[in-house]
Amino acid sequence: MRTFLSDNAAPVHPRILKAIVDANKDHALSYGDDPWTARAIERFRQIFGSQTDVYFTYNGTGANVMALSSLLQPFEAVLCADSAHLQTDECGALERFSGSKILPVPAEDGKLRPQLLTPFVRNPPEEHRVKPRLLSLSQSTEFGTVYTREELADLCAFARQHDLLVHMDGARIANATVALKCSLREGTTDVGVDVLTFGGTKNGLLCGEATLFFDPRLHEDRARYVRKQATQLASKMRYISAQFEALLSDDLWARNAAHANAMAKLLEQQIERIPGIRLTRPVESNAIFATIPRDSIPILQQKFSFYVFDESRPEVRWMTSFDTTEEDVMAFARLLAGEVHAA
Amino acid sequence: MRTFLSDNAAPVHPRILKAIVDANKDHALSYGDDPWTARAIERFRQIFGSQTDVYFTYNGTGANVMALSSLLQPFEAVLCADSAHLQTDECGALERFSGSKILPVPAEDGKLRPQLLTPFVRNPPEEHRVKPRLLSLSQSTEFGTVYTREELADLCAFARQHDLLVHMDGARIANATVALKCSLREGTTDVGVDVLTFGGTKNGLLCGEATLFFDPRLHEDRARYVRKQATQLASKMRYISAQFEALLSDDLWARNAAHANAMAKLLEQQIERIPGIRLTRPVESNAIFATIPRDSIPILQQKFSFYVFDESRPEVRWMTSFDTTEEDVMAFARLLAGEVHAA
Amino acid sequence: MRTFLSDNAAPVHPRILKAIVDANKDHALSYGDDPWTARAIERFRQIFGSQTDVYFTYNGTGANVMALSSLLQPFEAVLCADSAHLQTDECGALERFSGSKILPVPAEDGKLRPQLLTPFVRNPPEEHRVKPRLLSLSQSTEFGTVYTREELADLCAFARQHDLLVHMDGARIANATVALKCSLREGTTDVGVDVLTFGGTKNGLLCGEATLFFDPRLHEDRARYVRKQATQLASKMRYISAQFEALLSDDLWARNAAHANAMAKLLEQQIERIPGIRLTRPVESNAIFATIPRDSIPILQQKFSFYVFDESRPEVRWMTSFDTTEEDVMAFARLLAGEVHAA
Amino acid sequence: MRTFLSDNAAPVHPRILKAIVDANKDHALSYGDDPWTARAIERFRQIFGSQTDVYFTYNGTGANVMALSSLLQPFEAVLCADSAHLQTDECGALERFSGSKILPVPAEDGKLRPQLLTPFVRNPPEEHRVKPRLLSLSQSTEFGTVYTREELADLCAFARQHDLLVHMDGARIANATVALKCSLREGTTDVGVDVLTFGGTKNGLLCGEATLFFDPRLHEDRARYVRKQATQLASKMRYISAQFEALLSDDLWARNAAHANAMAKLLEQQIERIPGIRLTRPVESNAIFATIPRDSIPILQQKFSFYVFDESRPEVRWMTSFDTTEEDVMAFARLLAGEVHAA
Repeated sequence: MRTFLSDNAAPVHPRILKAIVDANKDHALSYGDDPWTARAIERFRQIFGSQTDVYFTYNGTGANVMALSSLLQPFEAVLCADSAHLQTDECGALERFSGSKILPVPAEDGKLRPQLLTPFVRNPPEEHRVKPRLLSLSQSTEFGTVYTREELADLCAFARQHDLLVHMDGARIANATVALKCSLREGTTDVGVDVLTFGGTKNGLLCGEATLFFDPRLHEDRARYVRKQATQLASKMRYISAQFEALLSDDLWARNAAHANAMAKLLEQQIERIPGIRLTRPVESNAIFATIPRDSIPILQQKFSFYVFDESRPEVRWMTSFDTTEEDVMAFARLLAGEVHAA
Repeated sequence: MRTFLSDNAAPVHPRILKAIVDANKDHALSYGDDPWTARAIERFRQIFGSQTDVYFTYNGTGANVMALSSLLQPFEAVLCADSAHLQTDECGALERFSGSKILPVPAEDGKLRPQLLTPFVRNPPEEHRVKPRLLSLSQSTEFGTVYTREELADLCAFARQHDLLVHMDGARIANATVALKCSLREGTTDVGVDVLTFGGTKNGLLCGEATLFFDPRLHEDRARYVRKQATQLASKMRYISAQFEALLSDDLWARNAAHANAMAKLLEQQIERIPGIRLTRPVESNAIFATIPRDSIPILQQKFSFYVFDESRPEVRWMTSFDTTEEDVMAFARLLAGEVHAA
Repeated sequence: MRTFLSDNAAPVHPRILKAIVDANKDHALSYGDDPWTARAIERFRQIFGSQTDVYFTYNGTGANVMALSSLLQPFEAVLCADSAHLQTDECGALERFSGSKILPVPAEDGKLRPQLLTPFVRNPPEEHRVKPRLLSLSQSTEFGTVYTREELADLCAFARQHDLLVHMDGARIANATVALKCSLREGTTDVGVDVLTFGGTKNGLLCGEATLFFDPRLHEDRARYVRKQATQLASKMRYISAQFEALLSDDLWARNAAHANAMAKLLEQQIERIPGIRLTRPVESNAIFATIPRDSIPILQQKFSFYVFDESRPEVRWMTSFDTTEEDVMAFARLLAGEVHAA
Repeated sequence: MRTFLSDNAAPVHPRILKAIVDANKDHALSYGDDPWTARAIERFRQIFGSQTDVYFTYNGTGANVMALSSLLQPFEAVLCADSAHLQTDECGALERFSGSKILPVPAEDGKLRPQLLTPFVRNPPEEHRVKPRLLSLSQSTEFGTVYTREELADLCAFARQHDLLVHMDGARIANATVALKCSLREGTTDVGVDVLTFGGTKNGLLCGEATLFFDPRLHEDRARYVRKQATQLASKMRYISAQFEALLSDDLWARNAAHANAMAKLLEQQIERIPGIRLTRPVESNAIFATIPRDSIPILQQKFSFYVFDESRPEVRWMTSFDTTEEDVMAFARLLAGEVHAA
């Protein structure tokens, strides 16, 4: 089965799997008091700075919930793009767990800009309204677009001015960082991000995300309690940590992401030659959005499954991943050309 | 490193690990629409009945939270032993996520009995008080004791009389079932349990638990939403499901548990010969509780780590697991005999 | 002190105050088991139908929270106008108390229409997203506009088609009903509203609102528990009920509202003659919105306090109430004419 | 109708009602920006110290919820007597609103003591368990008993040692203070209480309680948001504040409470002469608990309504209030003597 469904339809990267297998001996202290976790945390600190406070979780919704709930009081609100995973794809997990309100900001292309945020911070805080306290940026966005470092710096400066913390939902931070041709640090701490949820599952892990607080004082020792309450504390944590240790070794995170991005570019190039397909978003990471003839969709999906993002147009989404092959792309492009021509 | 810390200090059983490795090919639909999940659910239905509604989760706190939150309104309360994991070791996860109140019932040995519950259901429900609606039983208990089938049947009958649903926290259901020398069904559905959280992690899985509703009408289609909101929906679910498929094949669940229980019995036999150690709880599954000389504790822990359960006595806990060996037990017994004698 | 701040800046209507004073004798069963409450409920049933289930609360936020939390599961969402009190002025009370997400629908004039709602109900429900389950309509709106009965019927029909319950936030239902020249029933149950929060405080009460479920089965006996949990169950309830009994006697509710609306109309007429003031919303109930010269605002506020609704334009809001006099209006109009001319 | 049901079955004290009537003129800024509120706050500051931070609410459950939720993170727990109103009579309001867990401490007579608390603070905090952070003391208790100042000082010292804040649930603080023959300050701030919910409704108010933070830094500016979110912010607040102004004038709070307590003492004296009635709790404030013949209960209740506290014994509760008269007491005592003799 080969698909362009999502990067979480892909399997586990062989080197990640090997790390799990290698970790499988003897007993280890549970809940993170083990050497694998210590080493994985150390790797993150080498990358992001020695003060970084690292919390592993099972999945991305869990990482977001524990990150934000460690920082917010229930009357403090989150500003995010109206297309953000947090707003649209987490089934209200944050609201239910923490009570905090999300204020969705209309953003055509999934990217926030200071002027879009201004109406939400115009009035001085008062008790009748929730208090905006955190800005959540998805990097890359749900549309596969990528904030530039300048855009990030501007948004972080705006946040500072308005007493907002900055969270980066980095479920696909690797794809974004590779696209920006910068280091992980240059695209996060250096531009002013306070807390990053660093994605693993969509970049080759079995399961695992990491929440990184760049200044541990921000959460006032709340994070470890919040992770446990949020049901995201793994007992056999060594198996998550070992995966991260492998992902952060030999730039595996970057190589996986670079490959996925390259495959998206290759597919884009092939598509541009096919009349009848219109790319609807710039291809900046590992997602491609396009409108195609409606009739062709079910036929295409029989061979390569994918999602219809907006039934009304119809706009489809094709995601590439670390394991997408050139053969996958070329075979899909041929199929596309044939079916779209026929439709 | 060899320990008697907890069954979650053990590694992944080789057959479970093999199932993960075998599942690692090609793409799969995410969030459970994959063949591994279908097969694992089918195995559970063969065991517990075809109407069983199965939801995989990452961990036990998550399984408990999603099970109970699918059944309770926020003004409905849970009755459980005051020593239950739900009450003492989940950091208030249920209260925070669902708002439901837990009413802890004092139970000396971790086992509830109808007469202990009577004071909590005496008065007719009215709006000033939370409404008891669910009875949660830990099988085996936090003290390693095991409810007999008759005790369970009595409790379930009591629950029916008082309009209480019955949840079994089965983080160690395998150990309890093996101890009862009955089938999984005979110790759960047949005695009247409504919902079971079926433990995997403590019986050889990397991570994974299953919540089983024996009558899907009880949760009124809430369970799938609640699992997602509770951050317990795995994207690459095949890797949890494949583990359960292996655990439920060739009675691996029972063999792992039987071995752990046998090692606890062996340790018990060895200890009974050692003057200065007093067993404080009946050894009915894979836990041993004992009082030992205080001075011997740090010395023992250097070789075989374990927890002090109650500092004041001091009472210690030794857990065995699927991978505990006879050599581990005999070596530890020798060490115990020597250190306790010396102390 | 005379103001155009809000209808809750007004005092208690003398007949309401008399009802409080008259109720002040002897003991009464608390929490609503008293004759005043029985009579007030009976009055509501005479108006809205004998099956109406009535719950008194202290205030409007409490009434909204208890109404919606009695109907929604935490993964079910509310659709309301982005200007709704529920979204903008209740400090996230619903999210914190119930966990339910609010999906704000952009609505220029505060009034929802089926086509604005369509994008929110387009996709079939699935677990990644909250499930829209309730449509909340403010009557009159935050902008003082009033849904016609046809508009309400269309919205309720749309709601039925999409399995949405309909809540009417009637903090100013009296003003709206008078404006529509219909009966309370014609503008609520007859057009398809399921639950109404009936405002008292802004129409002459000391404090008190009523939540009316037109079909008690909808809340499945949850409402009384939810009211208590939401801290909205009054112990000396007779004093709220007695106020409602008076408000619903001799059409006091309608007379108060009609007077407030008439004063708004009178002010509108006076303003239309003043160059330099532009009415920004149709005056349909007891609110007037206008843009005026910025410099005139502080001077005006010294004599008659009022709110600036949108600093950026600046747009101001003037509310009339049951106790606004013709003299108040004429004096304010003269002041306006003078200051705006001067500015 | 004359009863011994509860002090909330009593009406509004005439001087309190007069304060409401007197406040009923002209417009006032809503939500507390009015002169009545300023004056009532000033009165509280004269009594408790100038740094006292005062928040009026509608009722006691609301006052408790807003007080505790302003101080606690959701993973922080409350220690209180297992008979505390917070635990038994607020329908889980705190858990639902804030997520915080309540740890009920078994306390035979409703009074906590340091040794009862020790088991709950023995272990160092860690993430698996909620973190005890606040001790809530009911003064007077649900059984009408009163902590002495020495007992309070000991408990507060214990709390300081264990990093616990001290909340006093003072729904009947007036009755307790009068019983202790000390000033309000001597029984609260002077012994180490951090936050007090000061009861009004049970001491002659129509509705109204006050939450007093003796050190405003404790809540870090959260209280005003929390009150609003908890639906406890009154729009026409002058009517609550005016009542408190009257209650705190000319020692009305003390006179009302002293009268209620005296009536309880009088009833106790009469009862002691009646064979067949056994007082089950010391009469220290305005509650009397006794066992009486079961058959006499319904006959007695026809003339003077009251609650059966524990059906199993049966133990009944008789509450006196500011408006209980000597005639009430003597008539009830005669009735008791006759019926108990007959039974």
